[in-house]
Amino acid sequence: MVWSETSPRYRVDVTDGNLSRRRFLGIAAGGAAIGATAGIGVSAVRSHAVSATHAAMQAPVAFEGVHQAGIATPAQDRVHFTAFDLTVADRFELVALLKEWTLAARKLTLGLPSGSLDDADVVAEDPPSDTGETLDLPAAGLTLTIGFGPSMFDHRLGLRARRPAALADLPFFAGDALDAAISDGDLCIQACANDPQVALHAMRQLTRIGAGVVTPRWAQMGFLRTTGVGDPHATPRNLLGLKDGTLNLDVTQPALLDQHVWASADDGAGWMAGGSYLVSRRIRMHIEAWDRSALEEQEGTIGRHKSSGAPLGAVHETDTLDFAVKNADGTPRVPVDAHVRLAHPDHNDGAHLLRRGYSFADGLDRLGRLDAGLFFLAFQRDPRLQFVPIQRRLSRTDALNEYIVHQSSGVWACPPGVGPLGYWGQTLFG
Amino acid sequence: MVWSETSPRYRVDVTDGNLSRRRFLGIAAGGAAIGATAGIGVSAVRSHAVSATHAAMQAPVAFEGVHQAGIATPAQDRVHFTAFDLTVADRFELVALLKEWTLAARKLTLGLPSGSLDDADVVAEDPPSDTGETLDLPAAGLTLTIGFGPSMFDHRLGLRARRPAALADLPFFAGDALDAAISDGDLCIQACANDPQVALHAMRQLTRIGAGVVTPRWAQMGFLRTTGVGDPHATPRNLLGLKDGTLNLDVTQPALLDQHVWASADDGAGWMAGGSYLVSRRIRMHIEAWDRSALEEQEGTIGRHKSSGAPLGAVHETDTLDFAVKNADGTPRVPVDAHVRLAHPDHNDGAHLLRRGYSFADGLDRLGRLDAGLFFLAFQRDPRLQFVPIQRRLSRTDALNEYIVHQSSGVWACPPGVGPLGYWGQTLFG
Repeated sequence: MVWSETSPRYRVDVTDGNLSRRRFLGIAAGGAAIGATAGIGVSAVRSHAVSATHAAMQAPVAFEGVHQAGIATPAQDRVHFTAFDLTVADRFELVALLKEWTLAARKLTLGLPSGSLDDADVVAEDPPSDTGETLDLPAAGLTLTIGFGPSMFDHRLGLRARRPAALADLPFFAGDALDAAISDGDLCIQACANDPQVALHAMRQLTRIGAGVVTPRWAQMGFLRTTGVGDPHATPRNLLGLKDGTLNLDVTQPALLDQHVWASADDGAGWMAGGSYLVSRRIRMHIEAWDRSALEEQEGTIGRHKSSGAPLGAVHETDTLDFAVKNADGTPRVPVDAHVRLAHPDHNDGAHLLRRGYSFADGLDRLGRLDAGLFFLAFQRDPRLQFVPIQRRLSRTDALNEYIVHQSSGVWACPPGVGPLGYWGQTLFG
Repeated sequence: MVWSETSPRYRVDVTDGNLSRRRFLGIAAGGAAIGATAGIGVSAVRSHAVSATHAAMQAPVAFEGVHQAGIATPAQDRVHFTAFDLTVADRFELVALLKEWTLAARKLTLGLPSGSLDDADVVAEDPPSDTGETLDLPAAGLTLTIGFGPSMFDHRLGLRARRPAALADLPFFAGDALDAAISDGDLCIQACANDPQVALHAMRQLTRIGAGVVTPRWAQMGFLRTTGVGDPHATPRNLLGLKDGTLNLDVTQPALLDQHVWASADDGAGWMAGGSYLVSRRIRMHIEAWDRSALEEQEGTIGRHKSSGAPLGAVHETDTLDFAVKNADGTPRVPVDAHVRLAHPDHNDGAHLLRRGYSFADGLDRLGRLDAGLFFLAFQRDPRLQFVPIQRRLSRTDALNEYIVHQSSGVWACPPGVGPLGYWGQTLFG
């Protein structure tokens, strides 16, 4: 590791109540005094009495760590995901960008502007170094997570030998209808926050900083629960109306994460130790066809009751899925092609995924149908042993295939976390 | 008016703690007992100790009233807007739909499923009458607001003579780059809520109910503030990084609303008394060009300081805009082509708009630029005297035109509110 937990930590002084996003730009406002409005930005988190939920919604998530934030971090309310392509074949320029991005990410995840914090650097004749749409907003749980696609390891940067075996190209799966324009990319950034404007703002600053080295290839926004609306302990429902995530990997169990999510030095690519592999899939749902199907068809397709989320024939959401239970006529209670049966670890050599997906709704398609579905994001230790075999099985026999289609795909090596002096991808480039 | 405030009000029994969205579908879950999970839906609002902010986020907004909700209602966090076209030329079928929609809207805005509330009506062999993705969610401030476009008043339904003069087709404005596929429509519904899933769910139910009579033509989703994130009293910023709405019409002043927003019987079309006219415009922002412009260019374009939102040369956001103030060299402090100068009521014969717009971000365009901007929604008493002259002026000389383009347009007659026995549009069709 290039850093240790005992190193002096990178410091941005947020203890001064005057240091806020607003103050940063305030001095540029024609030199006007801003006393009356100062301190409403980051300091609002400290100065207002807010409920525990509000505090959690607004608070920063630590950027530094052994692992990148945004993986085992409990999913925030919103995602803004962007894939980028390199516009230069120059390792030095890319490393310089990764360092600049890391510095910006440190600030943004604290709820600070990405630009200089030194007021003297703000000049009216220059474009503002921060675009300003979050001047009054706190960190809102922002995490920024970087990943490298297989194409990063082609001839351009001389990284061929460092490509992890686990970062294999995904195979074609039955039914795939992938659009190359919204698939893959040299690298990706996942921005998650409890406010869409905060996530968008962060991506916008990183995109600006990246100009001349990378260009955005595709982006996807999404939503999950809304903190403060509904029971915070309820499993969120996807746009099929189903509870989604009941059997997801428990992020509070480090041993499970070590086993299923974090790459190890023993896995082959030493630079990925502490990192993880992300598979992204835009899964469009045929909402209108689903909505016309009978309740028993919907429940048989998934293998759970729609309302309670309980396994078919069971009562509670968390009741054990018992695939041996049969109906009176001898057929299995959970159909052989039900989604939960085919995706269950027991039927996939124990393979688990850490799913961290979001619903999306992007208006209507040309036929007036809702362009909506699931932006599937899943972290894992080795896609060859986890996503690929599970998806191969699902793609062939899952009853749910009648109602969904995969339109975008990506596989990404997300490097380990960074310490006080580190930068994104340092173990690869350093 | 077809109803009075003293009529017995439409009642849905929400006092029974067992009546929740979840219970509604629960009985269909193979007849399983649902005691352990019952009552988490609507009743969560009552049974959990939540902060005042959370309560406000979750609570219902009254559907009934002299005016439709969603106009003078303080803007919720999210919008889901859909324009529909008629697929039949049959007034009877349309009226039947408007009645069915109204009944569904009454339920949805209470946080209840749109379908039958009688458990006996749920049959496993039928499609669920509600799609279920909000089974665990409260009303979340949902409002549903209907509007009729000019094309509703063509030859098909025999309504020509009832078209309000104020519902004139909008003229072409300089710079308009309207896409017909995402403009206009026979009618529209604006769904606003503090949760995107709640807004989407409501629109999805109304779309299903409308099948065979109307078909969705285009849709636009958007976001504004996030309740619980940041200072609730701060003016939200748009994606130009600017405070947007400082001088918006004060919805707490009924006299102002009567003067500028609510149509009166004296205005010509008696059926529109208590209604309002909505203009919708999808205004794409050239985000990347804006972000490359100097701070003083940005501030001169709008006429306000970016950070504080104060008029140029002033200190506080709410300081009076004094257009007579000059710089030392004799030029006006607020440039002659600044947005706030041209849009100000003082320069538009006192014309005010009740703006209720939302930011949107719909991924990237084909050139990798953020497809983002402002979904402008403005309510008014007569667009011929309000939006049209203001926009004519802006379209010709507003400095902001360099950074924006109007891509979608619609003008809608939003009928008055409905009472306990009424339905949407009853004053037109009844």
